[in-house]
Amino acid sequence: MSAAGPARGRRPGSADTRARILDAARAAFAERGFDGATVRDVAARAEVDPALVHHYFATKQRLFVEAMELPVNFATAVPALLAGPPDEVGERFVRFVLSLWDRPDVRPLWLGLIRSATTDPVAAAMMRGLLEQGPLRVLANAIDRPDAALRASLAGSQFIGLILARYVVEVEPLASLDEERLIRLIGRTIQHYLAGDLGAPA
Amino acid sequence: MSAAGPARGRRPGSADTRARILDAARAAFAERGFDGATVRDVAARAEVDPALVHHYFATKQRLFVEAMELPVNFATAVPALLAGPPDEVGERFVRFVLSLWDRPDVRPLWLGLIRSATTDPVAAAMMRGLLEQGPLRVLANAIDRPDAALRASLAGSQFIGLILARYVVEVEPLASLDEERLIRLIGRTIQHYLAGDLGAPA
Repeated sequence: MSAAGPARGRRPGSADTRARILDAARAAFAERGFDGATVRDVAARAEVDPALVHHYFATKQRLFVEAMELPVNFATAVPALLAGPPDEVGERFVRFVLSLWDRPDVRPLWLGLIRSATTDPVAAAMMRGLLEQGPLRVLANAIDRPDAALRASLAGSQFIGLILARYVVEVEPLASLDEERLIRLIGRTIQHYLAGDLGAPA
Repeated sequence: MSAAGPARGRRPGSADTRARILDAARAAFAERGFDGATVRDVAARAEVDPALVHHYFATKQRLFVEAMELPVNFATAVPALLAGPPDEVGERFVRFVLSLWDRPDVRPLWLGLIRSATTDPVAAAMMRGLLEQGPLRVLANAIDRPDAALRASLAGSQFIGLILARYVVEVEPLASLDEERLIRLIGRTIQHYLAGDLGAPA
């Protein structure tokens, strides 16, 4: 979208229109979640007919899945997180997450995902996949201590709780806490879950 | 509700009807969240006319606030959490939370609150109040280390992330983890946030 000039013609069927609908969908889902956002609302934001949204994406669910595709290549991000002192992986992960949060092409996706995952099964499955198989799991596998899957899901619970408490519900003083202190405090917990001693199973 | 016999007459205006509407509201909000649940849906579950819901509660927002009132007296729960070894407050808190989660009069409230707080400002404010001023804050105050408010909000982020990841999104293997192990693993983090060394602010 950002590269599109203001005076370009809007030809239905063009990649431009499709991208505009996806941008509008991200904004709508971020604001209202999957249940609250309507195809009519998305069409109005994109300045197209609702029929065109259905033409491109068939269902609201398909639209959601495509709109929520993260523009982040974890395959390149993870090695950078693993480089550097091994006892600071947790801090580097939190720093990485906060840098993503500041990106205008990522924040609406995460907001949309978290606002939808609590009520919509498709969004919940996407979040589940992200937490079970995403970067935290890759990190846990690379760190190579027992129980990598459990470690990733514990770290994921702290990560998702941080996003919810700081950015969505805005619990104070966490919501206005200095970033460097936040990185140290939450980073320590992520580090423990990924690489610390979890004790015996029984 | 639970004490009401099955054959009692349903007189509009009775406390029985009001309680039945509140029960129906809790079930509806737990399932669909504030945005998804409708007054019509609540009325149908309670087997009353929608006008009666409006008569008692005026708005869906008022209905939500009353339905979400926790049937738990934290004033009596907190001293029990503080009794016993001081380095196990975190574990006792997690154990307490899981015991609440198992109660059929509490689980729908928490589900309703978390499913609503991501999109509805009133629900978000309720969750914010619970995390800023609720039992975690009372515990942090009683433990009496610096930064009690920050400690409570950090612990709150892990608590709410646990509920979301384990019970709502069902991230594995966290979702099926043995309760005693969960209590130790998450309890350690809560303990650190409430009573550990958080390092210097700058």
